[in-house]
Amino acid sequence: MKKLNGIITAQQFNGADIETIFSIAATMKAGNFDARMLDGKIMVSLFYEPSTRTRLSHEMAMLKLGGNVIGTENAREFSSTVKGETLEDTMQIVSGYGPDVIVLRYHEKGGAERAQNYSSVPIINAGDGTGQHPTQALLDLFTIKQEFWKIEDLNIVLAGDLANGRTVRSLCYFFAKHFSKNRIYLVSPEQTRMGDDVKDYLKKYGVQFFELTELDSILPVADVVYQTRVQKERFVDNPKLYEEVIRASEKLIITPKTLARMKKKSIIMHPLPRVNEIDRAIDVDHRAAYFRQAQNGLYVRMALLKMIIVGYQNGND
Amino acid sequence: MKKLNGIITAQQFNGADIETIFSIAATMKAGNFDARMLDGKIMVSLFYEPSTRTRLSHEMAMLKLGGNVIGTENAREFSSTVKGETLEDTMQIVSGYGPDVIVLRYHEKGGAERAQNYSSVPIINAGDGTGQHPTQALLDLFTIKQEFWKIEDLNIVLAGDLANGRTVRSLCYFFAKHFSKNRIYLVSPEQTRMGDDVKDYLKKYGVQFFELTELDSILPVADVVYQTRVQKERFVDNPKLYEEVIRASEKLIITPKTLARMKKKSIIMHPLPRVNEIDRAIDVDHRAAYFRQAQNGLYVRMALLKMIIVGYQNGND
Amino acid sequence: MKKLNGIITAQQFNGADIETIFSIAATMKAGNFDARMLDGKIMVSLFYEPSTRTRLSHEMAMLKLGGNVIGTENAREFSSTVKGETLEDTMQIVSGYGPDVIVLRYHEKGGAERAQNYSSVPIINAGDGTGQHPTQALLDLFTIKQEFWKIEDLNIVLAGDLANGRTVRSLCYFFAKHFSKNRIYLVSPEQTRMGDDVKDYLKKYGVQFFELTELDSILPVADVVYQTRVQKERFVDNPKLYEEVIRASEKLIITPKTLARMKKKSIIMHPLPRVNEIDRAIDVDHRAAYFRQAQNGLYVRMALLKMIIVGYQNGND
Repeated sequence: MKKLNGIITAQQFNGADIETIFSIAATMKAGNFDARMLDGKIMVSLFYEPSTRTRLSHEMAMLKLGGNVIGTENAREFSSTVKGETLEDTMQIVSGYGPDVIVLRYHEKGGAERAQNYSSVPIINAGDGTGQHPTQALLDLFTIKQEFWKIEDLNIVLAGDLANGRTVRSLCYFFAKHFSKNRIYLVSPEQTRMGDDVKDYLKKYGVQFFELTELDSILPVADVVYQTRVQKERFVDNPKLYEEVIRASEKLIITPKTLARMKKKSIIMHPLPRVNEIDRAIDVDHRAAYFRQAQNGLYVRMALLKMIIVGYQNGND
Repeated sequence: MKKLNGIITAQQFNGADIETIFSIAATMKAGNFDARMLDGKIMVSLFYEPSTRTRLSHEMAMLKLGGNVIGTENAREFSSTVKGETLEDTMQIVSGYGPDVIVLRYHEKGGAERAQNYSSVPIINAGDGTGQHPTQALLDLFTIKQEFWKIEDLNIVLAGDLANGRTVRSLCYFFAKHFSKNRIYLVSPEQTRMGDDVKDYLKKYGVQFFELTELDSILPVADVVYQTRVQKERFVDNPKLYEEVIRASEKLIITPKTLARMKKKSIIMHPLPRVNEIDRAIDVDHRAAYFRQAQNGLYVRMALLKMIIVGYQNGND
Repeated sequence: MKKLNGIITAQQFNGADIETIFSIAATMKAGNFDARMLDGKIMVSLFYEPSTRTRLSHEMAMLKLGGNVIGTENAREFSSTVKGETLEDTMQIVSGYGPDVIVLRYHEKGGAERAQNYSSVPIINAGDGTGQHPTQALLDLFTIKQEFWKIEDLNIVLAGDLANGRTVRSLCYFFAKHFSKNRIYLVSPEQTRMGDDVKDYLKKYGVQFFELTELDSILPVADVVYQTRVQKERFVDNPKLYEEVIRASEKLIITPKTLARMKKKSIIMHPLPRVNEIDRAIDVDHRAAYFRQAQNGLYVRMALLKMIIVGYQNGND
């Protein structure tokens, strides 16, 4: 059996592995797993940025499979970091203690790769600054598959701050490389359009995509509207721009009126946490898929932990 | 077997359940329990307000029964909360991960009930602002029972900031509904008298109670003196009032002189942490029951976890 | 079988126990241990000062032996401490919950001893202010033994802020009492020389030691250069002195040039985290022993946990 050697970027996966991830995640979701599979195994969760939800999701996945967890919820403030230790030293030391996997949330782009270079055990990238958040992208895709039983021939709207949103960036890499037969609608304020690097990647793989600044025109055909939050922390150096983006984002808010224009068999997704970009009034509508999406994160992470620690074979769990 | 569906308020319990809680807690205290009872079960502890003692007490109870724990020690500062997520969203997401119980400490009154409404798993209210702290009240009553082998016909003094103290408020609800044959002495500075809502509740159930501003007159007859701390955080909007209350509380401090006026078979209780409202000099006196009381918290929480996760029958453990 | 009754100071150990610690640690390092040895046992880690590395090292040791861990990463800010609770009360309460061991990092000298006096379970001192850090000293000595197969007849250089560095202080106590046949070179800025208490202790046990303000003269004969970090937090009351010490420490920085003057069979140690007192360029040199040293911490702590919780016999694991 082979093993996944850490989860760093969206681009690292081949199609067969993605199929296997989804297949194992579906098995986990159905409750068909050995709850002692990771007995005696240890996860260290190192979070340099607060993210209770992402952290608990990984830790819960570990416990559900019988493993154990230790870690820190704010490594940036409460660790040797304040004493001046580099990420590289920390990873070398912590991996030297012999855990089976380290889940890392870092506040700077590229942190996960830097960490992996100095770690003797596999790293799961739980988000690195404006970089990537590959497990989020995997759970997003798993959710689309669970809802439509396919990830092709769909009209997928990615809305919000596309310049800084790492979840939408990671998603685009997956769409380009593995699910290129969808149409992608990039909807954002003028100030925060998707970066050229991602658009070039989409072009390279021949993905049809369109850039818009409003949602209205595509609501009637959208299968998926993937909404995101404008993250204040990405604008620390430019509060004026933040205000502008917030104002420009107001017309992208999802309300019951938005839903009224959408198809019966369409879904609203969101990586959560949300602030006000999705009106709570739509939570009761079955098309509001974001809580199901969050729950799918647990199963995808259980699958990844199995594939990292125990191993896997393609076409077979 | 039935199960407790969360612990939200003091008022939710019926007499039979309280009896069962005390009976199971006594069994736990005697060491008669299966240390693998909660094998594979998971507690999430979500603390929006620091309370190391209460958190460790719940987590220790979980571990002693073979269960596992993940959580966050300061959800308010270090979580998606800073990103603007509501308690309702957090509960929906975290409960969706499938833990067996969530222990919640929240900084606003009513938080536990709001949480339960959006959680798919049982919530234990570990204190919600000036609201309630029902497990504290249960361990307080269990302590009285362990010390006197009854909870009736006792002279019980509740002293301190009664306006804001949620432990004394929760206690009064229990006394009213289930142990109404005691005499309650409400001793507080004039500025922080017990609220009318609680006094009305006591009246409704026919409990004899008296309001005082000093301890001296009742010390010779008191069976229990339940002392509390004036919590600065309840006076953030009124520091001047805080100073007044602190000054007025000075004459309520328990010292060796206080103890000298009390009966041989009486006890001093305190929910802890204490600051200076009980002189450390009395710790060695057997009537100082507060550390035994803190320890009883472990057994009561073990009992509650069993009743929530495994189930129970009244008149039978 | 006897048990270690807590780890408070470097002075508490006798020679036979130290031998046993090293012998069991070597067994742990070789992987010869029962991974269920501490099944059902509970560690509470109470850290009043941030130290991710030390905390994770102890917690990992507990998990590797099958035990469980709960705790707090910043008891000072996020606990009943902010409400005014004393360390003594906290220890009495937490130990009353019945864990098998408490790992304590405290911000004031003497904290560990105060804690042990009020705890009903063994305490492991994980550093108390400018006081001691005995497990660090044990892992340091274990590292020397692993590297040289002896702890005698070596030229050992202790460099950095010797006035405030608790690791070097603890080390000196061990050298004096148990490994007195080495030559100790105390190298520090003039402003932060080793305290007289420690020097008197070295004299009392007849240890040869020398005080210097630069490294150059002893590099050619040094077997061990133990470098330490100047800790800003020890100079809060005197920022000007801090600047002076930092400047004076510049000539103590370990660089490839330093290494070039050292013997082939010598090692560089550091308790970590490092800031810039060791140039990263030397990490690849086999004489850079600090990451091996950090890893040895895991095995020493596994040994100590076994000796505290399960017990031990001298001359025998």
